[in-house]
Amino acid sequence: MPAMMKAAVFVEPGRIEVVDKPIPDVGPNDALIRITTTTICGTDVHILKGEYPVEKGLTVGHEPVGVIEKLGSAVKGYREGQRVIAGAICPNFNSYAAQDGVPSQDGSYLAASGRCGCHGYKLTAGWRFGNLIDGTQAEYVLVPDAEGNLAPVPDGLSDEQVLMCPDIMSTGFVGAENANIRIGDTVAVIAQGPIGLCATAGARLKGATTIIAIDGNDERLAVAKRMGADVTLNFRKLDVVEEVLKLTGGRGVDSAIEALGLQTTFEQALRMLKPGGTLSSLGVYSEDLRIPLGPFGAGLGDHKINTALCPGGKERMRRLMAVIESGRVDLSPLVTHTRKLEDIAEAYDLFMHQRDGVLKIAIKP
Amino acid sequence: MPAMMKAAVFVEPGRIEVVDKPIPDVGPNDALIRITTTTICGTDVHILKGEYPVEKGLTVGHEPVGVIEKLGSAVKGYREGQRVIAGAICPNFNSYAAQDGVPSQDGSYLAASGRCGCHGYKLTAGWRFGNLIDGTQAEYVLVPDAEGNLAPVPDGLSDEQVLMCPDIMSTGFVGAENANIRIGDTVAVIAQGPIGLCATAGARLKGATTIIAIDGNDERLAVAKRMGADVTLNFRKLDVVEEVLKLTGGRGVDSAIEALGLQTTFEQALRMLKPGGTLSSLGVYSEDLRIPLGPFGAGLGDHKINTALCPGGKERMRRLMAVIESGRVDLSPLVTHTRKLEDIAEAYDLFMHQRDGVLKIAIKP
Amino acid sequence: MPAMMKAAVFVEPGRIEVVDKPIPDVGPNDALIRITTTTICGTDVHILKGEYPVEKGLTVGHEPVGVIEKLGSAVKGYREGQRVIAGAICPNFNSYAAQDGVPSQDGSYLAASGRCGCHGYKLTAGWRFGNLIDGTQAEYVLVPDAEGNLAPVPDGLSDEQVLMCPDIMSTGFVGAENANIRIGDTVAVIAQGPIGLCATAGARLKGATTIIAIDGNDERLAVAKRMGADVTLNFRKLDVVEEVLKLTGGRGVDSAIEALGLQTTFEQALRMLKPGGTLSSLGVYSEDLRIPLGPFGAGLGDHKINTALCPGGKERMRRLMAVIESGRVDLSPLVTHTRKLEDIAEAYDLFMHQRDGVLKIAIKP
Amino acid sequence: MPAMMKAAVFVEPGRIEVVDKPIPDVGPNDALIRITTTTICGTDVHILKGEYPVEKGLTVGHEPVGVIEKLGSAVKGYREGQRVIAGAICPNFNSYAAQDGVPSQDGSYLAASGRCGCHGYKLTAGWRFGNLIDGTQAEYVLVPDAEGNLAPVPDGLSDEQVLMCPDIMSTGFVGAENANIRIGDTVAVIAQGPIGLCATAGARLKGATTIIAIDGNDERLAVAKRMGADVTLNFRKLDVVEEVLKLTGGRGVDSAIEALGLQTTFEQALRMLKPGGTLSSLGVYSEDLRIPLGPFGAGLGDHKINTALCPGGKERMRRLMAVIESGRVDLSPLVTHTRKLEDIAEAYDLFMHQRDGVLKIAIKP
Repeated sequence: MPAMMKAAVFVEPGRIEVVDKPIPDVGPNDALIRITTTTICGTDVHILKGEYPVEKGLTVGHEPVGVIEKLGSAVKGYREGQRVIAGAICPNFNSYAAQDGVPSQDGSYLAASGRCGCHGYKLTAGWRFGNLIDGTQAEYVLVPDAEGNLAPVPDGLSDEQVLMCPDIMSTGFVGAENANIRIGDTVAVIAQGPIGLCATAGARLKGATTIIAIDGNDERLAVAKRMGADVTLNFRKLDVVEEVLKLTGGRGVDSAIEALGLQTTFEQALRMLKPGGTLSSLGVYSEDLRIPLGPFGAGLGDHKINTALCPGGKERMRRLMAVIESGRVDLSPLVTHTRKLEDIAEAYDLFMHQRDGVLKIAIKP
Repeated sequence: MPAMMKAAVFVEPGRIEVVDKPIPDVGPNDALIRITTTTICGTDVHILKGEYPVEKGLTVGHEPVGVIEKLGSAVKGYREGQRVIAGAICPNFNSYAAQDGVPSQDGSYLAASGRCGCHGYKLTAGWRFGNLIDGTQAEYVLVPDAEGNLAPVPDGLSDEQVLMCPDIMSTGFVGAENANIRIGDTVAVIAQGPIGLCATAGARLKGATTIIAIDGNDERLAVAKRMGADVTLNFRKLDVVEEVLKLTGGRGVDSAIEALGLQTTFEQALRMLKPGGTLSSLGVYSEDLRIPLGPFGAGLGDHKINTALCPGGKERMRRLMAVIESGRVDLSPLVTHTRKLEDIAEAYDLFMHQRDGVLKIAIKP
Repeated sequence: MPAMMKAAVFVEPGRIEVVDKPIPDVGPNDALIRITTTTICGTDVHILKGEYPVEKGLTVGHEPVGVIEKLGSAVKGYREGQRVIAGAICPNFNSYAAQDGVPSQDGSYLAASGRCGCHGYKLTAGWRFGNLIDGTQAEYVLVPDAEGNLAPVPDGLSDEQVLMCPDIMSTGFVGAENANIRIGDTVAVIAQGPIGLCATAGARLKGATTIIAIDGNDERLAVAKRMGADVTLNFRKLDVVEEVLKLTGGRGVDSAIEALGLQTTFEQALRMLKPGGTLSSLGVYSEDLRIPLGPFGAGLGDHKINTALCPGGKERMRRLMAVIESGRVDLSPLVTHTRKLEDIAEAYDLFMHQRDGVLKIAIKP
Repeated sequence: MPAMMKAAVFVEPGRIEVVDKPIPDVGPNDALIRITTTTICGTDVHILKGEYPVEKGLTVGHEPVGVIEKLGSAVKGYREGQRVIAGAICPNFNSYAAQDGVPSQDGSYLAASGRCGCHGYKLTAGWRFGNLIDGTQAEYVLVPDAEGNLAPVPDGLSDEQVLMCPDIMSTGFVGAENANIRIGDTVAVIAQGPIGLCATAGARLKGATTIIAIDGNDERLAVAKRMGADVTLNFRKLDVVEEVLKLTGGRGVDSAIEALGLQTTFEQALRMLKPGGTLSSLGVYSEDLRIPLGPFGAGLGDHKINTALCPGGKERMRRLMAVIESGRVDLSPLVTHTRKLEDIAEAYDLFMHQRDGVLKIAIKP
């Protein structure tokens, strides 16, 4: 094993560059993974733009597919050379938060309003790769709490087939899992980017029998159909709330999944939601959210609003790969491009400008 | 039985008056109840002020305790002369909404944004007494769908003991039931009016072992202690968010129950809530609600926000009366005053100005 | 409307005959349905054989598809001439049981052990058609509590397409719904008769990605594949418990659905169930059930055992028809034969001897 | 720190003796605890009698209260000298079972029927102390996976106050938590040994308002009253099923908690359970269990049967100690005797013969 590796690091707003870095030491509960494939996420673009602050020099990326290069002395149940993935969110399952049912929130904290306003809050602390510790857009990544986080890839699944599991698929699916879907439900999924597409696939797996996919891009709506949407609506062409009310005979949808993070999409979700329905929110918002009084029934609508941060852990990853293996869901249409790690700057550019029908890009170190 | 009765009706904003009205006819699924005790609710005050629109001439009030005067021909399981209550929300249990798990939303409807904005929504349609049909501040009230809504009062319980069951207790308790409380939880209940006090009692019944009651009125906080609060905080004397974070070692509360309906109280609830916690909202809001970005974790906090409209039905009422009968909860401190129906104008005045330590007033036709 | 109708009645053990009966009167909450299609269920065979006691002269059958002939005066939301179905279980939604979350158990009762042993229990009282009141194998059936039980058939669905909704599909699906299935689960469904086949389809709808269907009949296993099974096992050819443990790498299945009602199948379900898993039981047992100590972990296995009686009601029927309409599930392979009402004796004979690949027979009055 | 310690070990059926043993080495994820108080459990008696097989020489006991003597190099969040407890069940929270929601079943396994019958099953593998590894009836115990299992004892709580948390309280409470209790429920708890008494206290915390405690010992029934029972029934004096049906007006109980492990008590639980109710089973059975057909509704009673193995982990322990700290539950009446470790043989004798009103004995090394 060499001493140094290539890694894409955040240099300053607007610049992510591939540099040489020492390959990290492996502590007793760690594992060193040689990355064979990773990808770029919308969050990485926020980091690149300086909208989401990370330390300078941090390796970015949080979606690892690779091979165990070296196991910590206390990690049981794996062997070096094994193909694995790990969740984008890599919790410590010994934490209070994990045992309390929210592993993704391990390390999150609150701060009182008086001190420093909203900046005093950190509610994504289970997200470590490319946020709190070096990430996956590199030749190697160190996985902490490896015994709880490494998930062996079944033989017969390619890197590309499991590349969505660590983040996009886990996030999209939790949007469906949080939506209280019952067999025979009507579910709207608002926005059909990679996460929304996975939410559409997830809603189908949970038993929704009328899935209404909404986006402004007809190509994405066409992919939504392949993911399980029964009806697709282009918000550029019609008033989607009116249309959904028409489609449901005024009843509204049983659940609405918001997969973008805008005031408009959140509000659409609420306006098309039946009294007593569930709004499952996946979007990362960038400003205070307003809940309009009427659709909210002044607080008397028996509504449920659920949010989530991508679930991680080896059992979660095992299940997601089981879905892929079963053929129930095929996410290969989401991996539209492939680039080498050394070309990552160009890959970011392609991804952030959504050129060339790009959905997700496989990055190969 | 006489042909006419006394009833307090909405005349115009600012005027509710006792008038003579015909006693209604009894259809096959109805029951006519002779009211022995009823009460005034905060919502009635909104009606009086004209803030919540009802038809002129409608009898107000929605909390019936009385005696079955006449049963509809198709109503089984009761006898005339029986003491009963009925929920403030009187659903049709044959409706789709009821069978779908949200009986209180039977009759609610949505309207698209384009048509008439928020006024196109009605999300409280299970609430019929004093809203859609004649209410309970009268000598008699007609209970629709009587077989599903009449609940016999156990011998040995006085009118005053069960007077809170139809609305205040059912609402306060659903706030606790919606809060995902587990044994050993820390729960904050924000605002200690009658509903908040019942939410405090409900949180105790659900197994919360640290209940933090918050209000600006020390008398109410003293009652909160009797209802099960472990800690009381007066928001006029300290920063309650800071204080709660201090009390919980920075962990935040497992659940926060909002029982007032203001931006401030909603926001306090969110700011003191642990990542992954539940905000159970009971308040009736009067303007759009703003969710601050930071405490909301930009949508990534694994939060749950649940709202509710008071559950009704005979089984709900039976359970609530069982709680009273068991002695686990004593709501008698909430009934602070008694007035005759003919003096209801004065009773409204007393209640809306919160004079004389008033919490709830028993009205006797 | 004529005064008399043809109806198949229980005469004595071994004899069900078509006789003339008066068409019943319609009370305020009833509806009279002209049956266009119905079917025979395994329970009817038990009645025919005298194994399940019903009153002599009772019209049998509990799966109605038809047209509203006459509506009771108090029934709202329907029109005469409308095509409808109703659940096999026709609960009174105003009952305590229904409001308590178990409508199918309305009317059920317990009796103490001392009085008359197990015959003192009746736990199927929501089942009225062909059990407590006249059933559906007739030209007309009277539906009680019609407003809660009549479900309009969407245009475009044939009688045959919705014929399974009242009983078989609702029962099979509740087996899946009770099984705590999560996305990515491995689920075994033991026995692939009509109910087991629907449980297989239901498990797929709930997100199971490895469904193991078990039966002793290869034809039925072939239908199971069409319903969503990933693996089929013939218990006549191999030790199914061994095989399932092999298939799951010793892990066991997340959920096992028992769909027959024998000691053997129940025990297989338990033996292949993972620690912490759910056994969802649909079978109607005919003798005391024995739980073997070892697979039960002496009571320490964190197991869940759930049983169910077919859910009814118009909302349930609406959802099931929505599933059919969506095309997610096609139950037409289950309706293998058609007979006239007057030929019902022969149809019973065909059905009970499982000749000619019969699964379900459409009966046409 | 000395090299050797005193420990009570299983020698052969009928003999548990205090011997000298080396104090174990501390691996990176372990912690060595100096025991200040522990106790004897019914399971230990089974071990003593040879009814539950453990390796000869194994230190018995699984309820640790003590002080951290030495922390493993990778264990974060604690300091040496800190007072702690750990659950009787000490799971590896990095395991698939833990991430799958059943930490207590980590390490459990199934074996096919063909191989070796019921002895091929092991469904208690999260239970390690005094079962798979050396236990707590010793001067020191090594806690594996310490970061997930050590729970600091709040200042102000004595050893005796927290001594029930690791096993008895966690088990009794999970019986209540598994019973689907809602506010206003009627719950029967069958058997009022230490676990049943904790189940009674737990049922009260979950909102049951009529708790019926059943036992054959009037002293224990008197303690049950202190734990929250509303009604107590002595099965030696009356037919408890009849009596419960009478008390509930023939309705049956919403939930029945079985806390002993006999055919009789299981059957009583089922016979008094309402249709649609939950039977929460805590008992350790010693032979196959028979479910009587009638009370089981032939499998159509909408019953739920849940079993559990005592939950562990630091978050569980934190919550249980919060309950004690709140004063909601006082388990001090359960610790009736105190003995030195060297006198443990006599303590076993006292405990197994239930002399002198013994409930639990504090053992002091």
